Amino acid sequence: MHWSRWGDPDHTTALPDGAHDLMALAFGEIRPRESVALDAVQLPTDEVPADARAALAAIVGPGHVSQADSDRIHHTRGKSTPDLLAARDGDFGDAPDLVVEPADGDEVVGVLRACAAHRVAVVPYGGGTSVVGGLVADRGDLTGIVSLDLRRLDRLVEVDEVSMTATLQAGLLGPQAEALLAEHGITLGHYPQSFEFASIGGFAATRSSGHSSSGYGRFDDMVIGLTVATAGGTWQVGRAPASAAGPDLRQLVLGSEGTFGVITDVTVMVRRIPTERVYETWRWASFADGATAMRTLVQDDLNPTVLRLSDETETAINLSDPSAIGISDAGGVQMVCGYEGTPARVARMRSEVTDVLTGLGGELAGAQGGEAWASGRFSAPYLRDALLDEGVLVETLETATSWSNLSALYDAVKSAIADAAGAQGVDPLVLCHISHVYRAGASLYFTVAVREADDGAAQWAPIKQAAGDAIRDAGGTITHHHAVGRDHKPWLADEIGAPGVAALRAVKQALDPEGILNPGVLIP
Amino acid sequence: MHWSRWGDPDHTTALPDGAHDLMALAFGEIRPRESVALDAVQLPTDEVPADARAALAAIVGPGHVSQADSDRIHHTRGKSTPDLLAARDGDFGDAPDLVVEPADGDEVVGVLRACAAHRVAVVPYGGGTSVVGGLVADRGDLTGIVSLDLRRLDRLVEVDEVSMTATLQAGLLGPQAEALLAEHGITLGHYPQSFEFASIGGFAATRSSGHSSSGYGRFDDMVIGLTVATAGGTWQVGRAPASAAGPDLRQLVLGSEGTFGVITDVTVMVRRIPTERVYETWRWASFADGATAMRTLVQDDLNPTVLRLSDETETAINLSDPSAIGISDAGGVQMVCGYEGTPARVARMRSEVTDVLTGLGGELAGAQGGEAWASGRFSAPYLRDALLDEGVLVETLETATSWSNLSALYDAVKSAIADAAGAQGVDPLVLCHISHVYRAGASLYFTVAVREADDGAAQWAPIKQAAGDAIRDAGGTITHHHAVGRDHKPWLADEIGAPGVAALRAVKQALDPEGILNPGVLIP
Repeated sequence: MHWSRWGDPDHTTALPDGAHDLMALAFGEIRPRESVALDAVQLPTDEVPADARAALAAIVGPGHVSQADSDRIHHTRGKSTPDLLAARDGDFGDAPDLVVEPADGDEVVGVLRACAAHRVAVVPYGGGTSVVGGLVADRGDLTGIVSLDLRRLDRLVEVDEVSMTATLQAGLLGPQAEALLAEHGITLGHYPQSFEFASIGGFAATRSSGHSSSGYGRFDDMVIGLTVATAGGTWQVGRAPASAAGPDLRQLVLGSEGTFGVITDVTVMVRRIPTERVYETWRWASFADGATAMRTLVQDDLNPTVLRLSDETETAINLSDPSAIGISDAGGVQMVCGYEGTPARVARMRSEVTDVLTGLGGELAGAQGGEAWASGRFSAPYLRDALLDEGVLVETLETATSWSNLSALYDAVKSAIADAAGAQGVDPLVLCHISHVYRAGASLYFTVAVREADDGAAQWAPIKQAAGDAIRDAGGTITHHHAVGRDHKPWLADEIGAPGVAALRAVKQALDPEGILNPGVLIP
Repeated sequence: MHWSRWGDPDHTTALPDGAHDLMALAFGEIRPRESVALDAVQLPTDEVPADARAALAAIVGPGHVSQADSDRIHHTRGKSTPDLLAARDGDFGDAPDLVVEPADGDEVVGVLRACAAHRVAVVPYGGGTSVVGGLVADRGDLTGIVSLDLRRLDRLVEVDEVSMTATLQAGLLGPQAEALLAEHGITLGHYPQSFEFASIGGFAATRSSGHSSSGYGRFDDMVIGLTVATAGGTWQVGRAPASAAGPDLRQLVLGSEGTFGVITDVTVMVRRIPTERVYETWRWASFADGATAMRTLVQDDLNPTVLRLSDETETAINLSDPSAIGISDAGGVQMVCGYEGTPARVARMRSEVTDVLTGLGGELAGAQGGEAWASGRFSAPYLRDALLDEGVLVETLETATSWSNLSALYDAVKSAIADAAGAQGVDPLVLCHISHVYRAGASLYFTVAVREADDGAAQWAPIKQAAGDAIRDAGGTITHHHAVGRDHKPWLADEIGAPGVAALRAVKQALDPEGILNPGVLIP
């Protein structure tokens, strides 16, 4: 991962001409934005006491405890736009003091015990792709901060081809996990936009949801069991696919964002690798019509593998195909509908879905748009860097609600963003899509672009605040799949209520009595 | 509900001739079993202090606080076989002191506050159908026990026909809820065997699963949100169909069995009432073949509404049709396969499923067995009373595991039951079926019958202990849908681990600091 940009450092994306022209049209002249050089970055002094460092080295081996500047820089924060802006500005005030790489779950338990004994904060680190401040710990009165990098937990532990489950270690990144599963002809089918760099443990800790969620489900829906390292020892959660043995404690670990323990492996449901994949696009007269079509499908148990609907603005600039962004005048909105499976299954599902969508007035627009979406779907984050280079601040935010409340929530969030940006004298571009559907409701994913002012972070903060308040007031969840981290904490207490906060704090106190695990993240 | 038997007091089921003959064959001569008369029952002295009674009467009205013998008797324990045996023997030592009937959620909060202030235990009471001791509180050093009967919380609060959700108050019994929903053309589709007498709140508090779980899902899967009364106030849990806003706290309330708070209403996903229902039976050469067929269906996303497979013994005595129990010599095993929905959907699903099952060697045996199952499916508990009347002790127990472990778990439980009964010199009849399937595994539901000895409860205890130990040792969950109550507590700590126990205790302490809510139930 690049230290101040998204993704592979060797992968550079120039802004496509269409996007360039669109930005010029929307925001006026280009203002190239500078970024400090890596060797100019100043780091705070490493504070971890020597005896704690020695204890950690004794557990994981001295070669796996690093205080090198490069390691500390690469483990600083995540990849939200404010994170990227801070990195570009050379602000590494949130750098961890040490990076520790345990080899397995037992070493993670050992690290947690040593850190508890020495009162050192521990930030579990998978792929470093958090966009909500999930990797920034409160130092408080602790003696330092360790970034616990799980990259050495990279094994496929077990495959059960009868039960169609696999146990994966938490440090495996998406592509590594898929490569190991592919040797058995199986797939997890979990493709969030962060897929190329995010980890299995992170998917679980943040309740990730991927592009194929209508077919494969959310990540939390796929989890059968978890192994969690705590300072008190190893915790095995989940004994059966379903149970009535009290509260489902898997669901307490999922979404816990490293605050209760460190997930070291995850047993997930898998599927046979699809032998056929078809992605096609449909046009609808309006976002509302497209949303009704999605609702009709899912409430009739027709679940294409991929379902994604862009609103009018997102359709007009063709965001679903980053290589071809520009201004389109086709009108209406675009839906991507993808089918994966055996040829027979794809044919059957496609035929059923096509009947319903045609009956609802949708117009099949062919395979080109769908294939373009499929091939470009991981490139949007690179595009964000290219836009930042040209002085355009781009950030995303997301929520979910019931179908009956979707339109009101959409309007409320768009208005709030426009008003907050307008109060700064800037005119934002606000795009939206629905990409995760349920029988009872759906997600809304907003992309916001504004001309960056002198202080982009200060500019974004009131827009984010207004959007979050609008989500709360309109009854949406503060996050559908990005997690809470530090950025969504201001809204969490309202969402889960005082008893919910009390429950989370009680569990935290029980499992992490020293308060070393990701302090400041998640728990209000 | 009858005070010492299952169900409607006016509904009496004589043992069908076939069952009678079978029992005579299996266990020898009939030995009619006595039951004390209702007016001979002795109750312990009502212990709740007068000031607590007055405080409760002030909240719910004096007409809704009862210490009448009949009310106390009817709210004693649940409907496990040991519960029925105790009632028949006139043992009402676990009777609550008072029965309190609040009108709404606010009154429930008031009752909890008053009981916390006066240190009175509260046992939430829905339909009284627990088969795991979920209604028996530890008196400990508390000043008395209140049975909190939720029958007045009987409203359909809201229907959202766009999002296809409904909010139901917790005290509604299954048929009441379905009648209210039917006025809107919708159904919950949740039909556990206790359906006729169990409550919405109980379904949620115990993670119930119904006969149609392959089509409609488990109850916990249907829940979008819950309102929970706690001594600290009202807790609203669940804001969206799916969220990444931390741990899923709905899943902490579901299965909490009244120990964290009292569920007062539940928002659930609903469906249009099916216009067509087809139930048919298939024959397989063996239980293993049938299980493989079920697994193939569910792993290929083919989910008939009902899927139920009897093992060889259950098939031989035709348990799936209680009116026709007897000895059959057809051989093999029977599967019930049910389809519900629109005629088009039923036709499509049935055609797809029939293709797969035929391809796997199943033999379609027609509609008769399926219809018989559907019409008789709520009568088995009545049959248990008829068997108890003839001196045959019948009880059930259930578990779930992965598909790859299913056969080993089945063998282990059957052997454990046979050995434990054999040690008492009795030869049990052990029947089993699979009635809840998942992509990764399935449930096993055992019915055990033995000739009742002088002390039926003492006779059952070691059999239950052996079965529970076998389930634990073979890797099953101690309960798939009956819940924990008091009866499964001995195995829970092993299943959820020390950190899991610590988490439950911490939440309990945070939400119920006085420890008045169902003390002795669930939490190890």
